[in-house]
Amino acid sequence: MARAIYPGSFDPVTNGHLDIIDRASKVFDQVIVTVLENQRKSPLFTIKERVSMLESITREYKNVEVDYYHGLLIDYARKREVGIIVKGLRAISDFEFEFQMALINRKLDSNIETMFMMTNNKCSYISSSIVKEIASYGGDIKDLVPQEVYPAIIEKINGTKK
Amino acid sequence: MARAIYPGSFDPVTNGHLDIIDRASKVFDQVIVTVLENQRKSPLFTIKERVSMLESITREYKNVEVDYYHGLLIDYARKREVGIIVKGLRAISDFEFEFQMALINRKLDSNIETMFMMTNNKCSYISSSIVKEIASYGGDIKDLVPQEVYPAIIEKINGTKK
Amino acid sequence: MARAIYPGSFDPVTNGHLDIIDRASKVFDQVIVTVLENQRKSPLFTIKERVSMLESITREYKNVEVDYYHGLLIDYARKREVGIIVKGLRAISDFEFEFQMALINRKLDSNIETMFMMTNNKCSYISSSIVKEIASYGGDIKDLVPQEVYPAIIEKINGTKK
Amino acid sequence: MARAIYPGSFDPVTNGHLDIIDRASKVFDQVIVTVLENQRKSPLFTIKERVSMLESITREYKNVEVDYYHGLLIDYARKREVGIIVKGLRAISDFEFEFQMALINRKLDSNIETMFMMTNNKCSYISSSIVKEIASYGGDIKDLVPQEVYPAIIEKINGTKK
Amino acid sequence: MARAIYPGSFDPVTNGHLDIIDRASKVFDQVIVTVLENQRKSPLFTIKERVSMLESITREYKNVEVDYYHGLLIDYARKREVGIIVKGLRAISDFEFEFQMALINRKLDSNIETMFMMTNNKCSYISSSIVKEIASYGGDIKDLVPQEVYPAIIEKINGTKK
Amino acid sequence: MARAIYPGSFDPVTNGHLDIIDRASKVFDQVIVTVLENQRKSPLFTIKERVSMLESITREYKNVEVDYYHGLLIDYARKREVGIIVKGLRAISDFEFEFQMALINRKLDSNIETMFMMTNNKCSYISSSIVKEIASYGGDIKDLVPQEVYPAIIEKINGTKK
Repeated sequence: MARAIYPGSFDPVTNGHLDIIDRASKVFDQVIVTVLENQRKSPLFTIKERVSMLESITREYKNVEVDYYHGLLIDYARKREVGIIVKGLRAISDFEFEFQMALINRKLDSNIETMFMMTNNKCSYISSSIVKEIASYGGDIKDLVPQEVYPAIIEKINGTKK
Repeated sequence: MARAIYPGSFDPVTNGHLDIIDRASKVFDQVIVTVLENQRKSPLFTIKERVSMLESITREYKNVEVDYYHGLLIDYARKREVGIIVKGLRAISDFEFEFQMALINRKLDSNIETMFMMTNNKCSYISSSIVKEIASYGGDIKDLVPQEVYPAIIEKINGTKK
Repeated sequence: MARAIYPGSFDPVTNGHLDIIDRASKVFDQVIVTVLENQRKSPLFTIKERVSMLESITREYKNVEVDYYHGLLIDYARKREVGIIVKGLRAISDFEFEFQMALINRKLDSNIETMFMMTNNKCSYISSSIVKEIASYGGDIKDLVPQEVYPAIIEKINGTKK
Repeated sequence: MARAIYPGSFDPVTNGHLDIIDRASKVFDQVIVTVLENQRKSPLFTIKERVSMLESITREYKNVEVDYYHGLLIDYARKREVGIIVKGLRAISDFEFEFQMALINRKLDSNIETMFMMTNNKCSYISSSIVKEIASYGGDIKDLVPQEVYPAIIEKINGTKK
Repeated sequence: MARAIYPGSFDPVTNGHLDIIDRASKVFDQVIVTVLENQRKSPLFTIKERVSMLESITREYKNVEVDYYHGLLIDYARKREVGIIVKGLRAISDFEFEFQMALINRKLDSNIETMFMMTNNKCSYISSSIVKEIASYGGDIKDLVPQEVYPAIIEKINGTKK
Repeated sequence: MARAIYPGSFDPVTNGHLDIIDRASKVFDQVIVTVLENQRKSPLFTIKERVSMLESITREYKNVEVDYYHGLLIDYARKREVGIIVKGLRAISDFEFEFQMALINRKLDSNIETMFMMTNNKCSYISSSIVKEIASYGGDIKDLVPQEVYPAIIEKINGTKK
């Protein structure tokens, strides 16, 4: 059975992430969406909030599970006994960073394969940080994030500004 | 009448920025140079200082106005009723970031068009941050910034170091 | 009055080209769409056929003219007394080639400015050569080219194969 | 059952190709390696020779099949009823071209997903054309191609030179 | 006598750095490895610790000297009367940033030439920051850094975590 | 004594090439400028003409020699017993192709090191093919090629057109 991990910060989840989850769920028997902390950034949403948002948008997907982990992705993949990591690439710029991470992960464990899928080009300009920036100025992010989590994102960002 | 906004942090203005202002003033009937705050960076110069530097170097341009705004570029463009945003591209690396911003701005308001102009290749290595770094070490920035603002930049940076 | 030339091979014209013509016609007072021969490629359509296809799809645009030229773009711009060249950039890869051409054109005549506009990201994968390749294998190009020229392209490609 | 097509010119097959075949065979239940003609290049090896070379190097892989096709990749994928296309990416430069092809293929049939795998970075400089160029000058290509096909490649290239 | 400076943060030194030191020592009569502070980052290791690590791994190289400097690279090169700066490029992504720095350095002093060497592609995924990130999660960095400095790096990172 | 080969097609030599020859002659004890045939292109100038143009522009350089070779660069380097290959990089786009060639050359002979130098950014838009294209349309190439070879290039291109 082909199982894959789709890791990310998801701070917050966007329509670009949802697009990859949807595609990956059609290719693999099981997809584990895993929230990883990124030491280099201080997140807006807690791990718990991010897991909860992911769960609410993946409810309909029978073969998608949501999880989180503190530590190296490779250690997590081993623990879960999953041999495939899925990453989304947008037409814009992700490639080099993701390629470096994939090479280092292959170095750390050559049994774990990274596979790249293309984000829908309608989402190629969406990133979590751009969503946060637009929302913080009161801009309209309705088309950038899944509708189930839209109210939570707005509430959080308004709360942060006060 | 074709009017365009040239937005940026201008922290501080460089010869690369001045080159774009000069070119844009020849193409468009009116150019509004607008200082926008960048939430991700803490600026060296205040908005007021940056506006003042831009005003001193654009005095000779009859069709150039200097302004500033707190908020989304797209909201500013709507407020000013301007349909064109001008961005400078250097041969080096700006492309992907600017392209993403232009796509997101088009998404937010499809009536506002982003147009890119090439910075003079004599300026392709100049950025505000490199100017600040060189000056902070006592390096010579005379050829990197407009002469009208050179003393103000040096004074600010020396003041900051104390 | 701001007039711009939009040059290209247009062999054949695609929805990506039409998107730029449409955007440019909103920004500039007049847009001259000019078919230039590309010495490095042997075209599928004659100059006359390409001009005719462009005319049929720009009929509704009051401020768009179609023309052709044998020679350097810069010489053409001078002859027509137009100071602006418009080029479309797709999210994918055009940037470096177009930037080099713009720099060389600026070197040849510094009064002529190149401005870049972004192609709609729905068209970012469309190019004339990909259209020809798909059509030559009997693939469906209906969504890739303007409907007015679709029959002509199919007829030409089928005729070429015989 | 997850089945994938790994398409290419394979003119000739290299160690980079073999690396991807090996990785893909571990991820997917079945991998169909398919020789496609590339209209834009005149090949050195016939389709039959390329199929034969691929068969000799994949003999040990139980879940790998070799095939060929004249036409669009998407039509082939439909005919074979396979929903996944696998492409190798080298650290160097393939990305933009492959991304464009993947977007156009998605446009032609949104049910067929392209997935990218990284070539081993020991192979990142290997391409079929570089192999042919080196061999044509009598350079040593032993480490660049699978040993089973090395004699055939040398023989072909020496034969071509006469 | 051709002398070259190899500058960097070396926080900490990696196998990628050592590869460049080794190659440069074969090309140039003398190589000065110089630790420069990077104002934009707060380092993990002190200047003294970094110099000490570099000294321990270059002991065998007769023509390699280790040094450090607070200030602009160009001022340092002038002070040491060295006309060549050596930088390593990995297949992944360093190019644009290094090119900009080289252009600005040429602007500051046109007598000082920057030369680029390729890092071994076995090291193309290694960077100081990735080493720190992996080690901080208890991942295995043995193959990423020179063995002489491996214990010091582990000790530092474990000490920092407490 | 540090000796370097500067290889290329030089069809014809441009100011960009001359800039690299000039810089390399200051860094290395001897520079051998070597005309290599490029199998993939049919040249405009014969090897003999290209050697002759290079000789006329390097007459003043005591430590520059002009040569030519039919075959692999690496074989030539071995024959001449030179351990360094110098390549120019323009800000625009050469990087990936040159990097691949350097990796393959290192694979063929690990004792031969490729070093990259930056072309003056005033020359970043110049290439031999752009020079030929402009000249073929009667455009002005005076500032793009060394003055010593300008008449020969014009004569050749005019002769070719007849």
